[in-house]
Amino acid sequence: MLKLHFAPNSRAGRILWLLEELQLEYELNEMKFHPSDLKSDQHRERHPLGRVPVLEDGDVSIYESGAIVEYILSRHAPGKLKPEISSNLFPSYLQWFHYCEGMVMPPINIIVVQTILLPKERQNAEALGQAERLLSKTLAPIEKQLNNKEYIIGDFSAVDIMLGHACFMANRLGRVEESMNNLRNYIKNIESRSAFKKAINT
Amino acid sequence: MLKLHFAPNSRAGRILWLLEELQLEYELNEMKFHPSDLKSDQHRERHPLGRVPVLEDGDVSIYESGAIVEYILSRHAPGKLKPEISSNLFPSYLQWFHYCEGMVMPPINIIVVQTILLPKERQNAEALGQAERLLSKTLAPIEKQLNNKEYIIGDFSAVDIMLGHACFMANRLGRVEESMNNLRNYIKNIESRSAFKKAINT
Repeated sequence: MLKLHFAPNSRAGRILWLLEELQLEYELNEMKFHPSDLKSDQHRERHPLGRVPVLEDGDVSIYESGAIVEYILSRHAPGKLKPEISSNLFPSYLQWFHYCEGMVMPPINIIVVQTILLPKERQNAEALGQAERLLSKTLAPIEKQLNNKEYIIGDFSAVDIMLGHACFMANRLGRVEESMNNLRNYIKNIESRSAFKKAINT
Repeated sequence: MLKLHFAPNSRAGRILWLLEELQLEYELNEMKFHPSDLKSDQHRERHPLGRVPVLEDGDVSIYESGAIVEYILSRHAPGKLKPEISSNLFPSYLQWFHYCEGMVMPPINIIVVQTILLPKERQNAEALGQAERLLSKTLAPIEKQLNNKEYIIGDFSAVDIMLGHACFMANRLGRVEESMNNLRNYIKNIESRSAFKKAINT
């Protein structure tokens, strides 16, 4: 059976969300988002840097949320939540899937470090300001893409598991501007999905 | 015909490298790595943030290097440079492909900003130090993965186009430690490939 190594408030929520959307059977290893669990010797054997998510599937052990999404779709849900290669939605799906970690998450990571993880005396206003301006710039093309669409490529797909989760995180950090109506509606659409609710409340 | 919008010293080198490896026909739009080209109205129509690479293929226009690699492999080189879904190398291929932008590139981006792009008076030693320590940590699992392997999953594959290029960049920034013998050999293996040479010297 698929076994997901999980901690709350992390990219592991993406995989739990995907498993729930696909109604796949899985076992959950719920860890605390704390070094006592994540940086333990036991978890470092699964991920050398002590990160989540990690997925185990028989002899397979794999990390990186984008890789795990592709793995699950390829081996356990072929044809689901992803356009066919010949579909005219395929290039758009790929682009926005990779836009998540390529463009949106780097400034989000810096904002989390500079406002939550670092002690006050080591926080740097310049680094925070740069990240906030960059995040705002990276959200603008998503706002435009969502014109007249409920989800990133129209219907719900695995690209929403990645990029939608990043948008949800940006919003939780208070970084989705009031004027970005499409994005705010999009995040509401995501938050109304029962699979998402289960993933985020675990 | 495939048309690659390109600038030197950027992730666009990955796509030029891939096109050369696959011996596909392409047209190259060589731009300067300078706002006069990248932030022009014309290029912002292709990429709203003025980034490269962008690939055009008939009606398709797509950005994000990881997405473009997947697009080219899927539509123009099926079965090449990527393990089959059933292969026991498939999970490893996916993991290291996504490890590139997920783990290695974020600290590289910060090092480039803090040592090259920002004027001296706005550089921040704390931010630079954090990024250097993180990059060193993210390279360690690659060093281990390369034990007894010429390339990331054994034979040369598209994962080397992504992660190999990131390792090459880390090395050019002087951030691959002397003790990382596997990584240093790996980067030499990459640098000896004629397709890579052509991509990096364009």
